[in-house]
Amino acid sequence: MKTVHVRGDRLVTVEERDEPQLLTGPGASGLDAIVRVTAACVCGSDLWTYRGFRKPAHDHGMGHEFVGVVEEVGTNVRAVRPGDFVISPFYIADGTCAVCRAGFTAHCLNGGTFGAEIPGEGHANGTQSEMVRIPFADGTLTVVPDGAANDTNLADLLALSDVMGTGHHAAISAGVRPGSTVVVVGDGAVGLCAVIAAKRMGAERIVAMSRHADRQALARDFGATDVVAERGDEAIEIVKDMFDGIGPDIALECVGSVEAMTQSMGSVRPGGDVGFVGVPVTGGDLSVQTMFRTNIGVRGGMGTVRDYMADLLPAVLGGSIQPGRVFDQELPLADAAEGYALMDERRAIKVMLRP
Amino acid sequence: MKTVHVRGDRLVTVEERDEPQLLTGPGASGLDAIVRVTAACVCGSDLWTYRGFRKPAHDHGMGHEFVGVVEEVGTNVRAVRPGDFVISPFYIADGTCAVCRAGFTAHCLNGGTFGAEIPGEGHANGTQSEMVRIPFADGTLTVVPDGAANDTNLADLLALSDVMGTGHHAAISAGVRPGSTVVVVGDGAVGLCAVIAAKRMGAERIVAMSRHADRQALARDFGATDVVAERGDEAIEIVKDMFDGIGPDIALECVGSVEAMTQSMGSVRPGGDVGFVGVPVTGGDLSVQTMFRTNIGVRGGMGTVRDYMADLLPAVLGGSIQPGRVFDQELPLADAAEGYALMDERRAIKVMLRP
Repeated sequence: MKTVHVRGDRLVTVEERDEPQLLTGPGASGLDAIVRVTAACVCGSDLWTYRGFRKPAHDHGMGHEFVGVVEEVGTNVRAVRPGDFVISPFYIADGTCAVCRAGFTAHCLNGGTFGAEIPGEGHANGTQSEMVRIPFADGTLTVVPDGAANDTNLADLLALSDVMGTGHHAAISAGVRPGSTVVVVGDGAVGLCAVIAAKRMGAERIVAMSRHADRQALARDFGATDVVAERGDEAIEIVKDMFDGIGPDIALECVGSVEAMTQSMGSVRPGGDVGFVGVPVTGGDLSVQTMFRTNIGVRGGMGTVRDYMADLLPAVLGGSIQPGRVFDQELPLADAAEGYALMDERRAIKVMLRP
Repeated sequence: MKTVHVRGDRLVTVEERDEPQLLTGPGASGLDAIVRVTAACVCGSDLWTYRGFRKPAHDHGMGHEFVGVVEEVGTNVRAVRPGDFVISPFYIADGTCAVCRAGFTAHCLNGGTFGAEIPGEGHANGTQSEMVRIPFADGTLTVVPDGAANDTNLADLLALSDVMGTGHHAAISAGVRPGSTVVVVGDGAVGLCAVIAAKRMGAERIVAMSRHADRQALARDFGATDVVAERGDEAIEIVKDMFDGIGPDIALECVGSVEAMTQSMGSVRPGGDVGFVGVPVTGGDLSVQTMFRTNIGVRGGMGTVRDYMADLLPAVLGGSIQPGRVFDQELPLADAAEGYALMDERRAIKVMLRP
């Protein structure tokens, strides 16, 4: 089967690998499933590897988002059956450990990320692939009700595997409530989904920071009431001025750079909140003294998107949100290299890959 | 009148100064009040100055907590009258600016701290004094209903000027809710008040970190269900083990040291919250990557204690909380030096000074 790999600076290859198999034999937990990928995608975080900021952590292929159809399940899988159309979050979780029970499946004590070795359960290969083996299928996968997935909502369902849940996580982390005023820093797929989430949670005013006409338009469609194209100190001043000179209640940081975090912290009012979901590849520190002096709270991290499925899947199926609109390009899996280039050069917001 | 000053490393002096006067003449806003101090106190944060970690910022005297009786008010004061028994928070706020309206009076755009020059409004002298001039009397002071203040609840009312509101702020900042599990780092007056706050907000289990028998006992009286005497990594391990090996939902950092913040961040479960109110004199940074990897939120700062008066004053007057029990020493103002020494050497939890 075809799998996608980053083999050097901006070098993407599509390679042939054996199809994954259920773990069998003594000691096998029987908790895994084999899923045929219907659609996968390229993530903004994949670009950090593509650009050489971080090395591929393993040789199991790129990708951690997908939807597909279950082919086969282990002997102890209960909630997932062959033929089910499923959405996978971007991490593996058993759904039963103390951390999962606390609602943070992304930090499952026994799970891990795609490609990582999970003790006793093997690894899941990258999802930019034709087939994926999912350890802990019950805890990880969400089954879409029979017949509810179709060509029209495929992109929306795929968005639930990461970007919609992650944007939602930013809004949840910052505590968006009815009447909140919000600035969204980052106009990638996650930032645009954060606009959807903020709107859905009742934000009264939502400022999208964007300098691209197509993204600005989508942000407005999703519920942004204002668009600001400036960046850095200039942006902070403009946004503060829009809200009594003190800034909005909340900033949603959806980039992962030091600059975006600085802009987010600088934009919100005293006592406001920053929800952050951008993978902080370039690191950065927060000064406790600055936080003390401003009472600005900071909360975020890996979106626990599996935990949000019960809320967001009905919203997608009911048509109240259409996060799939962030996919503006669709390519065959074999053309993955072009998909990475489109996103790297910001010629696409989000690329769907079809095996 | 007598005022208290720090004049060198662990050197406290009581000096004679003129009594403060209402601002008068052209340009005077008429918004100030003169208050005779009934009781003031020494704050843990005063000890940072006493120990030489920071220099006195001004020559207007130490102290920022007190209760007293209004002597005189400016021509435009509306909510406060001569004869009123009032509680002052540890900062000056106009109560009307955009930040005050957002519920963060501690960051009032036009206010400031005791001793600081407030543009157009003069300064408030330190409250370890016989008399204090309060700029923005309406926004700053809270009037205790006529006849409700007495010798029995004096300490409780005094606690509302800082430590009770600050402990409450830690719990509010971390989002304590019914059923929360909480560890309180710091067994000073603020930490002990944080126990009161967590209990009052419905926490199911509260671990007080303390190695002093008297403080442990008070913490238990206030609602702590467990006491842990260890510190650092050892403490983290013990506390994590108490909660399914992953730690409690929430840590309340009530010290202000890097060590206390590190212990707080290390103790809570993935997706938990740290509420911090210790003045971070020794600074410290938080790694965004660590926060991302753990989904632990951090929120806190100067307690906006004025904003909590409407909630906490009735609780004190109704007898449901007794934060005044943190005062275990009472001294004449003239003996302020002994009061500082008692707290510095941890021979007292909290010292009340009576002019």
